[in-house]
Amino acid sequence: MSFISAIEKRWKTVDSNICVGLDPYPENFPASIQKLQNPIFEFNKAIIDATHDLVCSYKPQFAHYAALDALGPLKQTITYIKENYPDIPVILDSKRGDIGSTASMYAKEAFDVYNADAVTVNPYMGIDTIAPFTEHKDKGVIILCRTSNPGAAELQNLTSQGKTLYETVATLASNDWNTNNNVLLVVGATAAAEMARIRQITGNMIFLVPGIGAQGGDLKAVLQAGSTPDKTGLIINSSRGILYASKGDDFAQAARSETQKLVDACRDIYRSF
Amino acid sequence: MSFISAIEKRWKTVDSNICVGLDPYPENFPASIQKLQNPIFEFNKAIIDATHDLVCSYKPQFAHYAALDALGPLKQTITYIKENYPDIPVILDSKRGDIGSTASMYAKEAFDVYNADAVTVNPYMGIDTIAPFTEHKDKGVIILCRTSNPGAAELQNLTSQGKTLYETVATLASNDWNTNNNVLLVVGATAAAEMARIRQITGNMIFLVPGIGAQGGDLKAVLQAGSTPDKTGLIINSSRGILYASKGDDFAQAARSETQKLVDACRDIYRSF
Repeated sequence: MSFISAIEKRWKTVDSNICVGLDPYPENFPASIQKLQNPIFEFNKAIIDATHDLVCSYKPQFAHYAALDALGPLKQTITYIKENYPDIPVILDSKRGDIGSTASMYAKEAFDVYNADAVTVNPYMGIDTIAPFTEHKDKGVIILCRTSNPGAAELQNLTSQGKTLYETVATLASNDWNTNNNVLLVVGATAAAEMARIRQITGNMIFLVPGIGAQGGDLKAVLQAGSTPDKTGLIINSSRGILYASKGDDFAQAARSETQKLVDACRDIYRSF
Repeated sequence: MSFISAIEKRWKTVDSNICVGLDPYPENFPASIQKLQNPIFEFNKAIIDATHDLVCSYKPQFAHYAALDALGPLKQTITYIKENYPDIPVILDSKRGDIGSTASMYAKEAFDVYNADAVTVNPYMGIDTIAPFTEHKDKGVIILCRTSNPGAAELQNLTSQGKTLYETVATLASNDWNTNNNVLLVVGATAAAEMARIRQITGNMIFLVPGIGAQGGDLKAVLQAGSTPDKTGLIINSSRGILYASKGDDFAQAARSETQKLVDACRDIYRSF
């Protein structure tokens, strides 16, 4: 099953558009986890076991593992999801981008070495750096469009020929780059006005939405701005707000409660539309 | 010593602006290397030993190791350079870019885990994704400006308020982002006209120049367009053209010859100015 079909199926079967970002900060793990032999994997495993029936996806962020020289636990985490919860697609958030021959190696990294179902990519270098990813037809290719960070507008909101850079990326992603129907966009929760515009441009294209929670994005504004007419179209990511809801031994249960709160909040907001 | 000082010192001591890109394609290694236990490291070691007195820098490209699940040999290669040729700075070419908290982890990846002296970064997300790298004052931060790939112009040559995107990046890199004097730019050899414009904008900022050789860039046009008045300012990278000059047992000697040819060609061109 393709990544996009798997996401659409999860939206229906668990009625949730929440993605849990698996970003390890070991200093925030409870002491009982910190002292284990493989704390990152054990932490992730507990989070996954506690939240699997509430999520449409998991999204490990590469840098958090790379900085700790812990790519083994990253691989183990994805393997654990695949073996125990095979219906849940995994997004490797690594924001890759390079010349064509090198981009094809980054596609191998994401899809073969880490066995991810989707990967985030950076569009700055243009189409020939995107195509080596999209040719993996069953995989999802999630292109940075309008990001959630404070400095995002510096380049992304520059206007050329009547279009901002993020609008140009959205237009190219819809019309030119999506030859295999497996392109999605990253659209940050902190930019609801931009998100509404990107929804106009892209029809039913799915958005991965970071920036809820720790980064300050407003859930209601996001669902109003970004949803498709059938009240889907979004993968809402939360990382720190869920993972570190408690730093005590109840961390997994607290993560479940936070995830449930987000799921319920989305359902309530959609009912109010 | 800072990365930029180390590069400037190498330009003087070995009179070479050539950087050898260490991009392993094991299928191109001679059979005698392929059958060793650690072929990637052994190949790199032979290349380094054969070229060290002719280069200003080495540049391993991350994806080539990641796709082969060979990050151990990447680390070993950098350690080997540090231990045996400590005057040669190492650029980790990984083109990272993410929100601030994550960018600081990518800085750790490059500078702590891999012990690189410089890293390539992608500017699409703006200043707060650059600053976590530049705060490492002795390290080099090499920002993608105008890349060498065929699709580079698609976004990078869009014009906003009279400036192309690559000109905007060059201007920001010079004026706003370079608070610690450790910023450099990636400017592809395949875009000599753009390179001349970027040189006008950035004064004496150093450019890392990929695209000579396999990608078709013209050395003379590059040196004319990109050099500073003192005939420096450039780190000219070649990867495949040097590494795979021979696929036989004489590969290291052939790599040395190709490197020497490039060094001599640069010296000849500079003498003709």
